[in-house]
Amino acid sequence: MVFQKSIQLPLFSRGFHLITDHVLSELPKVSGIVQVFIQHTSASLTINENADPTVRMDFETFFNNLVLEDNPSFLHTYEGPDDMTSHIKSSLLGSSVSFPIKNGAPNWGIWQGVYLCEHRNTPRRRNLFITVIGE
Amino acid sequence: MVFQKSIQLPLFSRGFHLITDHVLSELPKVSGIVQVFIQHTSASLTINENADPTVRMDFETFFNNLVLEDNPSFLHTYEGPDDMTSHIKSSLLGSSVSFPIKNGAPNWGIWQGVYLCEHRNTPRRRNLFITVIGE
Amino acid sequence: MVFQKSIQLPLFSRGFHLITDHVLSELPKVSGIVQVFIQHTSASLTINENADPTVRMDFETFFNNLVLEDNPSFLHTYEGPDDMTSHIKSSLLGSSVSFPIKNGAPNWGIWQGVYLCEHRNTPRRRNLFITVIGE
Repeated sequence: MVFQKSIQLPLFSRGFHLITDHVLSELPKVSGIVQVFIQHTSASLTINENADPTVRMDFETFFNNLVLEDNPSFLHTYEGPDDMTSHIKSSLLGSSVSFPIKNGAPNWGIWQGVYLCEHRNTPRRRNLFITVIGE
Repeated sequence: MVFQKSIQLPLFSRGFHLITDHVLSELPKVSGIVQVFIQHTSASLTINENADPTVRMDFETFFNNLVLEDNPSFLHTYEGPDDMTSHIKSSLLGSSVSFPIKNGAPNWGIWQGVYLCEHRNTPRRRNLFITVIGE
Repeated sequence: MVFQKSIQLPLFSRGFHLITDHVLSELPKVSGIVQVFIQHTSASLTINENADPTVRMDFETFFNNLVLEDNPSFLHTYEGPDDMTSHIKSSLLGSSVSFPIKNGAPNWGIWQGVYLCEHRNTPRRRNLFITVIGE
């Protein structure tokens, strides 16, 4: 069975945000694999700790220091200093997450959740496309 | 066909370790996609070189320098200096690997294998969940 | 339905290159998930911006600065200064990309495409293995 659904997230500010509920509420009652794909190249998805907000704040701090906005070498800066850095963060973290599902529930650890990683300064409409392959 | 199986790895020390045999021994004789998912947020999985132990040592060296434990900006440090850094390394490398399978054998390059990336100082029980979709 | 196909890319120089057409021309007219897997550990795949060549140039600049070739700590340097660094870049970016497909067309954003990330100095034959699970 192939299940596919497009969802639009509410607006999120720059940073790392838990969107687990937005994803889980869409899943059919099957067992197999879930793929959540983000249809953008300046925001990304990752799976990480689902409880303490400071984890998501530290993620933002770390990635801002890893991919510096004042890098004079960057050529692709049409849309401002958060343009090229967003593309790079997006590939470091990834455009999709994939996890196992069993009878409609994620078969992951109790501390795991899905993050939207919004790398742009201005909140944007972000579309996810969910595919579940299962039986 | 959907095949799902949970496995528990033996204890591994901090660092990068080949766990290819632990994964391959569980695969059914089908053709399709294998997903190996780690049910934790302070250890991760990646696919890389399967022969020379110094590759895995250099991975540990590189990631320790990339994600410094004495970063005074980190807020999430309840469990020690290897706490937040482990979450970050986990998202840089990823919580799952996925590779093609043909008649029960991985269809990857001759130099490829699966690494467990253990980011915590103290060895912990790590559970993997394997899903194979194939026919 | 499981569809599997091996393809060999033309030679690409060190850097980031759009290979979207090479991938899309192989896809069957189904709906489901596409996995593109690279059978090497010194080149990688990612999904990012598909229009402006300076994005790919900035990627090369960024990753060369992130993973320095003159790192005296590296032990695995048999094949030159671009040996170990290629393995690390490969795991930071990933050995596969996965995206949704609907009626044979990628269900991604209008600005998304697939990059081959060639990390070695000398162009090499790179083999991809494409698996599509769909119906």
